Amino acid sequence: MSLAPLLKPRSIAVIGASDNPKRIGGVPVELLIRAGYDKLFPVNPKSPTVQGLTAYPDIESVPESIDLALVAIGADDVLPVLERCHAKGVKAAMVFAAGYAETNEAEGQAKQAELAAFAQRTGMRIAGPNCMGNANFGDRVFTTFGSQFQPEHPAGSTALLTQSGNMCATVYRTARRAGVAFSHVINTGNEADVDFADYLDFLADDDATQTALCYIEELRDGAAFLRAAAKFRAAGKLLTVFKVGASEKGAEAARSHTAALAGDNAAYDAAFAAAGVARVGELSGLADLAYLHGFVDKIGGNACAILSVSGAAGAILSDALALAGGDVPTLPDDVQAGLRAQIPAYGMVSNPVDLTGNLVNSNDFLLDAIKLALQPDAIDVLLLYLPGNFLIQAMSQIERGAAATGKLIVAIDTFAMGDREALAAKGIAYFQDFDRAARAIAAYGAWKAIVAAPPAPAASRTRWPAFPAGEDALSETAAKEALARFGVPVVHDALVHSRVEARGAADAIGYPLVAKLVSPDVAHKTEHGLIRLGLKDAAAVTEAFDTMMAKARSMPGVRIEGVTLEPMLAGGIEILAGVTRDPVFGWMLTVGLGGVWTELMKDVCHRLLPVDAAGADAMLRSLKGFGLLDGYRGAPKADVAAAAKAIAALGEAVLAGGDTLREVEINPLLVMPEGRGAVAVDALVLLNTENAIEEAA
Amino acid sequence: MSLAPLLKPRSIAVIGASDNPKRIGGVPVELLIRAGYDKLFPVNPKSPTVQGLTAYPDIESVPESIDLALVAIGADDVLPVLERCHAKGVKAAMVFAAGYAETNEAEGQAKQAELAAFAQRTGMRIAGPNCMGNANFGDRVFTTFGSQFQPEHPAGSTALLTQSGNMCATVYRTARRAGVAFSHVINTGNEADVDFADYLDFLADDDATQTALCYIEELRDGAAFLRAAAKFRAAGKLLTVFKVGASEKGAEAARSHTAALAGDNAAYDAAFAAAGVARVGELSGLADLAYLHGFVDKIGGNACAILSVSGAAGAILSDALALAGGDVPTLPDDVQAGLRAQIPAYGMVSNPVDLTGNLVNSNDFLLDAIKLALQPDAIDVLLLYLPGNFLIQAMSQIERGAAATGKLIVAIDTFAMGDREALAAKGIAYFQDFDRAARAIAAYGAWKAIVAAPPAPAASRTRWPAFPAGEDALSETAAKEALARFGVPVVHDALVHSRVEARGAADAIGYPLVAKLVSPDVAHKTEHGLIRLGLKDAAAVTEAFDTMMAKARSMPGVRIEGVTLEPMLAGGIEILAGVTRDPVFGWMLTVGLGGVWTELMKDVCHRLLPVDAAGADAMLRSLKGFGLLDGYRGAPKADVAAAAKAIAALGEAVLAGGDTLREVEINPLLVMPEGRGAVAVDALVLLNTENAIEEAA
Repeated sequence: MSLAPLLKPRSIAVIGASDNPKRIGGVPVELLIRAGYDKLFPVNPKSPTVQGLTAYPDIESVPESIDLALVAIGADDVLPVLERCHAKGVKAAMVFAAGYAETNEAEGQAKQAELAAFAQRTGMRIAGPNCMGNANFGDRVFTTFGSQFQPEHPAGSTALLTQSGNMCATVYRTARRAGVAFSHVINTGNEADVDFADYLDFLADDDATQTALCYIEELRDGAAFLRAAAKFRAAGKLLTVFKVGASEKGAEAARSHTAALAGDNAAYDAAFAAAGVARVGELSGLADLAYLHGFVDKIGGNACAILSVSGAAGAILSDALALAGGDVPTLPDDVQAGLRAQIPAYGMVSNPVDLTGNLVNSNDFLLDAIKLALQPDAIDVLLLYLPGNFLIQAMSQIERGAAATGKLIVAIDTFAMGDREALAAKGIAYFQDFDRAARAIAAYGAWKAIVAAPPAPAASRTRWPAFPAGEDALSETAAKEALARFGVPVVHDALVHSRVEARGAADAIGYPLVAKLVSPDVAHKTEHGLIRLGLKDAAAVTEAFDTMMAKARSMPGVRIEGVTLEPMLAGGIEILAGVTRDPVFGWMLTVGLGGVWTELMKDVCHRLLPVDAAGADAMLRSLKGFGLLDGYRGAPKADVAAAAKAIAALGEAVLAGGDTLREVEINPLLVMPEGRGAVAVDALVLLNTENAIEEAA
Repeated sequence: MSLAPLLKPRSIAVIGASDNPKRIGGVPVELLIRAGYDKLFPVNPKSPTVQGLTAYPDIESVPESIDLALVAIGADDVLPVLERCHAKGVKAAMVFAAGYAETNEAEGQAKQAELAAFAQRTGMRIAGPNCMGNANFGDRVFTTFGSQFQPEHPAGSTALLTQSGNMCATVYRTARRAGVAFSHVINTGNEADVDFADYLDFLADDDATQTALCYIEELRDGAAFLRAAAKFRAAGKLLTVFKVGASEKGAEAARSHTAALAGDNAAYDAAFAAAGVARVGELSGLADLAYLHGFVDKIGGNACAILSVSGAAGAILSDALALAGGDVPTLPDDVQAGLRAQIPAYGMVSNPVDLTGNLVNSNDFLLDAIKLALQPDAIDVLLLYLPGNFLIQAMSQIERGAAATGKLIVAIDTFAMGDREALAAKGIAYFQDFDRAARAIAAYGAWKAIVAAPPAPAASRTRWPAFPAGEDALSETAAKEALARFGVPVVHDALVHSRVEARGAADAIGYPLVAKLVSPDVAHKTEHGLIRLGLKDAAAVTEAFDTMMAKARSMPGVRIEGVTLEPMLAGGIEILAGVTRDPVFGWMLTVGLGGVWTELMKDVCHRLLPVDAAGADAMLRSLKGFGLLDGYRGAPKADVAAAAKAIAALGEAVLAGGDTLREVEINPLLVMPEGRGAVAVDALVLLNTENAIEEAA
């Protein structure tokens, strides 16, 4: 059901309305009166008026139909009141009271479950409990006891959506100082009914909102979040997130605080990347990205030209951009030559450009330099360091430069003497701090590049083979055969049960060979001599078959399914590709070089499925150890394209298998020299025991 | 010669003094008059007065002896004026003019060389050229044309020393806003005579200065910088540095800007660590560390307890501290139990501690929590998140908490409602931003830990063996024998010239063996079959000797020095340890695992020499790949202690060799399982050809 009655109510009853404008039941009344909201009905059994308005003894006495009830009473009294509201036809309610699931105690948790069940049963939408409430600046609806959200503050196109009341207030203050104006401010509270993703979905459809700034501790419904994020992306709206839990201590604290499902930090990163969400590392980044979104049409990416009256500032900005993931490309020769015509030998012109003190001597020097530096297609943004009076004196040239380009000019002034609003009116962004400017531009430009990327590939129509319920894993042979259906190249093995079968299969495969005993009951086959490598001829295969069978038969309780034979490959580089299920976001693909690379160096890359071959290629190239695949020390380059295709096929297979699967891994995927392919040597498929698959015809 | 005439002059002549208080020759006159400086003598041939003071037509006419001449005239006229100043006995001069080496042109460079030669010849100390000048707040001496340094600003104990005029002004403004007051502000300019390290040395001895904030592009004299830094450390004074060039683009820009020797960024990091210098990554960090130094006696390290009224803030602070290298230790069980007595079940007590809204209900609850959290020895600092009115209402409890502890309490208030000065008066630090607080506390605490470390080890008395001038490298045998003198365990090899010698030496060494042909003329011995591994008995050794000699004799122009035999070792893990000479800071030790670890993963650790065994041990443990030495996948742990000892011995050897050496590397150093030592299998010693060593008796 729509959240309009909650977030754009046409009438409001305040239950527990207080005459005291400082109390929880008084603040929203005071704010709504000040905002000129006219369909406001205080409910208070003890007083005929509240803050000058007629008050009603109970909800039933309110003479009009009500969209939203603000429930400013203690937790124990909430549910009976909600029942009466429902009886009157109230469409939504907001519960301020604490004492629910956040207590981590059974009584509060039960109370919250009752609230959720009530919402489920009646269809009433319930905000909170334990929330600070919302403010809708465009429609002038202030349903909050947070007094910092003032009706006098201007309405804007930025929404603030947070899971913490304190951070809501903190980000709001910071953003207001940065000149950001808001459409909605929403504090979600315990999310018993309406949850974070519901609000986000509303904001994605809300015409007044162009940007959402989010503070997230833990998401309850990753899939719903991703759907709402996709709406933002499709509408060209910016979604910016600060998420706690980047460190183990922080994650532990967030989990304890919210009692929500604990998604992995890497999964959040993968989800945000997949959904085109800009994640910032500092709270101040939320306001800065919202600010930059005001210049959305002028920013195509994060490749910056830097013009500076200070060589020092050019160097500092270059460092800060590099650290934040931005780019400072070397300017083309003709642009450098053009700049050099007016810049003396000691001023660098390659980028960063040191304008030198010469700036003050020449009339249109800066204007010319701005035009030249913005000319190359490879440059997205111009950073201009002119502190204090330099900026003020150069204003006319900067304005003319801004008028002559479709790209963004960002003025940086560490002396804090510029006029941010006057600059914004001319389409010029303004920062007073090197690092905040660099972080914001790098993150915003990266977001633009992500949302410009093509949409995800369509799902595969291939189906998994049938397997019976009750199994919790496929055999290696079955696992590889299943993946092969989806286009994963695999080392086919032959399962043999006798010396004769073994010799025939071996001759068909060719030598050298690997032989493995197949049994669900032996864990460490190498240690027991049940894997034999490098078998060079039929005699060796026969001997290995006999020895392994004899050994296995001597082990008590070991079921023997036979022996597999497969070719022994050499000359490739081993990588691993695995898909696991994150509890919040679902299937996450992990790619890395095997062994110490993954375990000690943590040199892995994660993405949410779906991932196409181009995406898998990018994942491989992002590894620090990618050089090993790229012709390290004169070795031949590995067939990265084939590896990427195999990894993408693994992803398709997992999506097609869906809930029947728990985890699928190829380890190793042997990547041969260029042109010679990549092949899954071993594969692991873990199943959900309760879900059997029956193969399609 | 002392810098007192420059930085604490008893009399000043201003040459080129202007009546206009906005001009370069007018600003210092105006500032000095305003500061009440009485021994001030304007020199101006065209006017009998300047800004109301008697002016003199030339320096000779000035009636008193002069400590410092401020030279505010064009570059072409500077040297003749300095000659006349010298003739009058002026002790120091400051040259504002540009047009010297910063032009990157021959004429300006020659002018600067003349200035340096003049200073050298006369003993006059020259500041600049191309500098903005200095301000000495304690003595009220303002010898600068930078008008932001106002005589009305309070004097303090923080010095600001920068290589950029713009950054000088930027940091000064930021620090003033943070409440920092200054002893000296110095902009070094081109450093033709007085350089960065000279100023730093003066500040180390200056009683008025307790902290120096430095902005560095490139240092010219690394050794002098390290000496001055050692004085700071010995005096317990904080030295904080922002250094550009952390990225390649930034380093390139800094080099272009300063035309100074390009030290490696890793060498700067190593030097700052060795010298007990706190390096900050953002300019704002300079002011924040100076501010924390005001609480120097209360901070022992960066292990923090976090108390917060917001679970969100506790999580954010934990993340920010972890990212900045700080620590959030779990509180001991008894402390947790004590906190739990007053904190409901939903508030986390392990650290971060979530005080919950309960804070407002209980009288001395916060005071008790502060005392409990600061009780463990493992906690250095208490971070207290109380925004806005929470902070104001809790002030009395916080003050009583601060009075009851010798440790620092840092109040963090993102609503910016606290009174920084009132808090400081009670010994309580105050920040308004999570990330700045976390970065500053992590960096300051780390600095305290570094300066508390024991001093560097004494130099070795061992001497290098003699080697003749003209050689540019030692043979592998000679290199290993030389390092062995200093205690590096090496694989001794035997150089043999005949089958008979070979057989005898082989029997003495034991089998298996490695044999290598020794020749200065063959580069790729393996490819030519001139290295033979795994020789198992005397017959194999004889055969290898004959084959290799025959092969070498068949190669034209190849000189043959014989064949070396050495034991073939197995079962260890290879690491590398090398010492190279950084152009600014001298000997830098690099330690890493070999091959791909070093080349692709850049998993290396750098330190300046000297490094003792404990230091080498810490270097090894800082490697991401250290797990390989530490019993990876059930392998035996490697003899890290022996490896550290060998690396420390390598460092001693290089320091003893001094300028005769260019580079020394052990690759590999084979680290055997615990208790079985580490041994240099191969060593490289590159020599300075112009420096021969003659061995001591």
